Amino acid sequence: MSDITLALDVMGGDFGPRVTIPALAKALNQNPTLSFLLFGDENQITPLLKKYSLTNHPKIQIQHTEQIIESDVPFSTAVRQSKNSSMRLALEAVKEGKAQGCISGGNTGALMGLAKLLIAPLPNIERPALTSLIPTMNGQSTVMLDLGANIDVSNHQLVQFTEMGNIFAEIMLGLVYPRLSLLNIGTEENKGTTQLKEVHQYLKTRLDLNYIGFIESDKLTSYLTDVIICDGYTGNIALKALEGAAKNIISLFKKEKADSNICRSAKSYLLKAIFYRYYRKLQEINPDRHNGATLLGLSKVVVKSHGGANANAFYYAIDYAIQQIENDIPNKISQGLSQLDKK
Amino acid sequence: MSDITLALDVMGGDFGPRVTIPALAKALNQNPTLSFLLFGDENQITPLLKKYSLTNHPKIQIQHTEQIIESDVPFSTAVRQSKNSSMRLALEAVKEGKAQGCISGGNTGALMGLAKLLIAPLPNIERPALTSLIPTMNGQSTVMLDLGANIDVSNHQLVQFTEMGNIFAEIMLGLVYPRLSLLNIGTEENKGTTQLKEVHQYLKTRLDLNYIGFIESDKLTSYLTDVIICDGYTGNIALKALEGAAKNIISLFKKEKADSNICRSAKSYLLKAIFYRYYRKLQEINPDRHNGATLLGLSKVVVKSHGGANANAFYYAIDYAIQQIENDIPNKISQGLSQLDKK
Repeated sequence: MSDITLALDVMGGDFGPRVTIPALAKALNQNPTLSFLLFGDENQITPLLKKYSLTNHPKIQIQHTEQIIESDVPFSTAVRQSKNSSMRLALEAVKEGKAQGCISGGNTGALMGLAKLLIAPLPNIERPALTSLIPTMNGQSTVMLDLGANIDVSNHQLVQFTEMGNIFAEIMLGLVYPRLSLLNIGTEENKGTTQLKEVHQYLKTRLDLNYIGFIESDKLTSYLTDVIICDGYTGNIALKALEGAAKNIISLFKKEKADSNICRSAKSYLLKAIFYRYYRKLQEINPDRHNGATLLGLSKVVVKSHGGANANAFYYAIDYAIQQIENDIPNKISQGLSQLDKK
Repeated sequence: MSDITLALDVMGGDFGPRVTIPALAKALNQNPTLSFLLFGDENQITPLLKKYSLTNHPKIQIQHTEQIIESDVPFSTAVRQSKNSSMRLALEAVKEGKAQGCISGGNTGALMGLAKLLIAPLPNIERPALTSLIPTMNGQSTVMLDLGANIDVSNHQLVQFTEMGNIFAEIMLGLVYPRLSLLNIGTEENKGTTQLKEVHQYLKTRLDLNYIGFIESDKLTSYLTDVIICDGYTGNIALKALEGAAKNIISLFKKEKADSNICRSAKSYLLKAIFYRYYRKLQEINPDRHNGATLLGLSKVVVKSHGGANANAFYYAIDYAIQQIENDIPNKISQGLSQLDKK
C-alpha cells in the first residue's frame, strides 16, 4: 500500500469537527501510514486533536479557515460563498495534487458543483454520478448510482451511469461481468417512464454488458443484482427510504434494549448472548458501515459523507475514499470507458 | 353499521383464491354482517370455501368466470382481455350498485384503467391517486399518495392530490387541519425538481391547507406529517423501498428465531417473552397491516391489494375498503373539494 494523503473538509456536515476529528483519529489508528490535510477552524480543531492525543501529529497538517459553505443554500449562493471555505480548500488540495482524495459531509450541491468546477471530469463523461456501495441481506454489497447528483438525466447519461457502475463493480467488488439493473416501479417491460423503457431496450442490445433488466425498490438489498442504475432524484428517494426504515427499526431495538426490565432483572448471559446476536445482525445492515458516496466520473476521488453521519459512519466514508485511491478507480473508469467506446 | 356488500376479484394477485378466500373467511368471521360477491373460477373457489366451512354461505354469491387479466400485460392488452374477467366483473358490480366497494390484487394498471373507464371520477378530479395509510414508528398512520397510478403528473394534479389527501386524513385519521408535506430529496426550498419547487411555492399561499413543506423519504414513518404527497412514480419507489427494508429485516428475525439453538435449548418463558416483545414491535410496523391502496378520487371505493399479499394482508385490504365505505369517503372527498373550490 502506497502512502495516501487525504484532504478533509473538517467543518462539513451537521456536527463538523466533533464528528470528523474522532473519525480521523480512528482512521489514523487503523492505518498509521495515512496523512491528512485538515481544512477548517483551528480554534475548534486543536482542542479536539488534543483530546485524541493528536496534537502536533506528524501526519496531520491544518490549514486554518473560518469560512464555511452553509448546508441549505443553493449552488449559486454556495459558489459565491466558497472562496477560502473548508470544502473548497479541500477540493483545491486534491486538484493541486497535494492530496489524492477529498472527503466532505457538507452541502451536496456545492460539493458536486465545486468538484466539477475544480476537478476535471474524465474524458467522455457528461455528468459525474453519486455512487455508493449499499449493503445486501446476505452480507454482500451492491453498487447504486446516481444517488442525488443529477435530478434530470438524458438517456445517454443513464447509459453512462450503467457503464461506470459496471466498471466500479468489477473493481471494488471483484466481479466478472457484474449484473446490471435499472431501478423501476415494476419488472415488466411496459412499466415506468418513457426514458426507462427506452434505455431498457437499448441496454438489451449491449452484449458487452450483463444487463438483466428492471429491479424494484423493494429488492434493493436482496442481492438480485450487482449494480442498480437510476437518475439522482429516484436514487435519493429510494436510498433514503431504505436507510430511514433501517435506522428506525434499529432505533426501536436500541430503545427496547435500554427499556427492557426483563433483561435488566434477568442479567443472564444467555439473554445477553441473544441480544448480541440480534444486534450483530442489525449491524450488518447498518447504513453507517456503508456511509460515503463518491462522485464517480471525476478524475480524482471525491467522497460525500452523510451530513448527519456520526464519527463511526464518517470513518467509513474516509475508508471508502482510501479503497478507491488504492484501486485507482478514476483511471480504471477512464480506461474501461475507452475500451467500451472501441467496441 | 349498515350492511356492506363487497365485490371481490378472487383471481387477482399472485396467489388468487388461495389468498383471497382465507382472507374473506377472516373478514366474515370478524364481521358477520358483510356480504360478498365473488368473481372467479368456481372450480378453484368451491373447494376453498368448503375448507373454510363457507359452502352455500348465505352472504356469499359466486359469479363464475375463467377469464383473468394477466399481471404483466400493458393496459392496452389488459383492456382487450378484460371482457368477463374477474376484475372487470367485480368493478361492474360496483358500477351497477350491486356492491359498495371492490377489492383486487390484480394488475394495477388494468385496475386503474378499468376503474376509470367504468366508475366515474368525482367532479373536478383529473386523476384518481393510489392512496394508502402507512404505519409510523409511534403506532399512528400517515396518508401517502400517489403510490403508482400516475407516472407523470401536472402541477395542478399534485395540488389536487394534496387536497384529496387532506380530506382523507381528516376523515380516516380523525384529524383537524392535518399536516401536509411534499416528498422531496431535501427540505430546503431549492431542492428537487422544478415541479416540486413550483408546487411548494403555490401551496405556501394556500392558507386553507396546513402545508408544512418538504419531507425526505427517510422520514416517511417518523410521524412528522399526516399526508405525504408525490407523483406515482416517486411514491411507488419510496414505499417499496420502505416495505422492502421492513420485510427484509423482519425475515432476518424470523430466520434467527427459527435458527437459534440458544433459544431451543433454553425453552425459557423469559426468552419467549422477550422474543414475543420483539416480534410484536415488528408487527406494529409490518406492512401487511397497512396493505391496501385506494383509488382516491373515484365515485366508488376501489382498493388494490399487493399482488404478493398473503391472506392476512389481503384481509387488511378488505378492511380498508370497509372503513372507507363506512366513512362515505367518496362523497366526503367530493363535498370537501367543492368547499375548497368556493374559497
